[in-house]
Amino acid sequence: MKWPERVKVKEVGPRDGLQNESRFIPTENKIKWIDQLSLAGFDYIEVTSFVSSKWIPQLADAPELAKGIARFPGVTYAALVPNQRGLEQAIESGIDEIAVFMSASETHNRKNINKSIADTFPVLSMVTREALSAGKTIRGYISTVFGCPYEGKVEIDHVIRVADKLFEMGIYELSLGDTIGVANPRQVESMLEVLLKRYPAERLALHYHDTRGAALANILVSMQMGITRFDSSVGGLGGCPYAPGASGNVAAEDMVYCLREMGIETGIDFDKLLTAARYIQEKLGRTLPSRNLQACPS
Amino acid sequence: MKWPERVKVKEVGPRDGLQNESRFIPTENKIKWIDQLSLAGFDYIEVTSFVSSKWIPQLADAPELAKGIARFPGVTYAALVPNQRGLEQAIESGIDEIAVFMSASETHNRKNINKSIADTFPVLSMVTREALSAGKTIRGYISTVFGCPYEGKVEIDHVIRVADKLFEMGIYELSLGDTIGVANPRQVESMLEVLLKRYPAERLALHYHDTRGAALANILVSMQMGITRFDSSVGGLGGCPYAPGASGNVAAEDMVYCLREMGIETGIDFDKLLTAARYIQEKLGRTLPSRNLQACPS
Repeated sequence: MKWPERVKVKEVGPRDGLQNESRFIPTENKIKWIDQLSLAGFDYIEVTSFVSSKWIPQLADAPELAKGIARFPGVTYAALVPNQRGLEQAIESGIDEIAVFMSASETHNRKNINKSIADTFPVLSMVTREALSAGKTIRGYISTVFGCPYEGKVEIDHVIRVADKLFEMGIYELSLGDTIGVANPRQVESMLEVLLKRYPAERLALHYHDTRGAALANILVSMQMGITRFDSSVGGLGGCPYAPGASGNVAAEDMVYCLREMGIETGIDFDKLLTAARYIQEKLGRTLPSRNLQACPS
Repeated sequence: MKWPERVKVKEVGPRDGLQNESRFIPTENKIKWIDQLSLAGFDYIEVTSFVSSKWIPQLADAPELAKGIARFPGVTYAALVPNQRGLEQAIESGIDEIAVFMSASETHNRKNINKSIADTFPVLSMVTREALSAGKTIRGYISTVFGCPYEGKVEIDHVIRVADKLFEMGIYELSLGDTIGVANPRQVESMLEVLLKRYPAERLALHYHDTRGAALANILVSMQMGITRFDSSVGGLGGCPYAPGASGNVAAEDMVYCLREMGIETGIDFDKLLTAARYIQEKLGRTLPSRNLQACPS
């Protein structure tokens, strides 16, 4: 079997993970945690989201947080922005890179962004144009690529329609999200077979949730198809709002452990990663879903 | 990629899962649970172990349990036996098939069975001879195939040495156990590459633990290598005594869900399986590690 020599793990826990947590984590703790992640060797961390604090109170401290974190050389500190206001704040806060997002399914897009897919394009068009002229690189997310909680299976044409638009807007990489964690390895294979004819592998990242336990299996098949970029979330933070209590994004430490054992380089120190996972677990005051965190509690 | 059309899932939760549980489950509850598993469509269930009740108090009710469970047509009800005394009890109790076990690593074998590997062979030789003459089929287990808590990595020659002996004794199938849950997909690939030159795929089953989160990924690679037989444990029961609190055997429902979504037939009804998982979770009074159980709590 063909395995990559190196895989790039992009940590999105501070944003995608924390946004589901109701217990507010004080900004200084978040900063300490993000610094631990930098120290562990991640070279990409999505640290927050510049959304209205009405939407996500947990991330209301985005500007202070962005200014407070240590900037390790060689690390990209990114933030999600939903609109122009968010972009302006992100730029003011000295964020390196911005991420924009929308859904492949119409209903999920409406519920999540409060706009149709067609009406989301002009908003993101403006955001991305301004981000580029401010010299920022842009990453795009598509949610519900492998399934939608409202519409079920999602047609690949819907994914391509949104992907094409985002690439036209100038994103350098597209993260394909299994938002509700229902992807299976065979679906990954057939989805990637089509997408890789259209986009180079270096332009695609996969963003799996472990809701049904198949995240690492899906990562494995993705690597076999040529994908070398994956999103992770320390501790397995994050989740699926439609399955409360279910496990969240694939845990960074489960992915990094497996890749390390396979001899695939990530640049991330497993023990330092565990330190960061234990830290945020303690601050959240509950057992996180990560398998390695439970296997190595101290 | 090449996927099998059908996979055989052998449920070992009532034995391998429960033996790690300190809270005694009343025999009538175990019986009800095993009947639920039969109803869910498993055609193989390892229901108990005929070991001394001093060793494993949880399974002290093996004879009553074996006599109390409903016998669904087409289902094989198996039990683990460590010695001749256990075999006699298993035969008296009307068990269909017996399983024998030993370790690939010397230290684990000594700690687990209190004998060297060399001294275990004659015991199992006698047990298997008598089992065969009583008309019972025999399944073999090898523990610590992918790693030993005392010796670390295990040489494949050690696995082959034990496997050859067990096949000589007349086992029809060998279950290769990742006892401490440290196998990785690349190791699975290289291990199976060697073993499949020596034994036909139909003679091998893989028994993964999800301690580090890689069980389904390992199953995936195993299927790509031609393996179609896997052990499971409802709820993800079971575990690794060297990592208390860590997750146990791969959860039957996580495997069955993934296979079903991939269009691979198992004969098992996912919803009925979840019913059985919820039942034993309630009786044990703690959250089990299965991802699907958490995603579908009711």
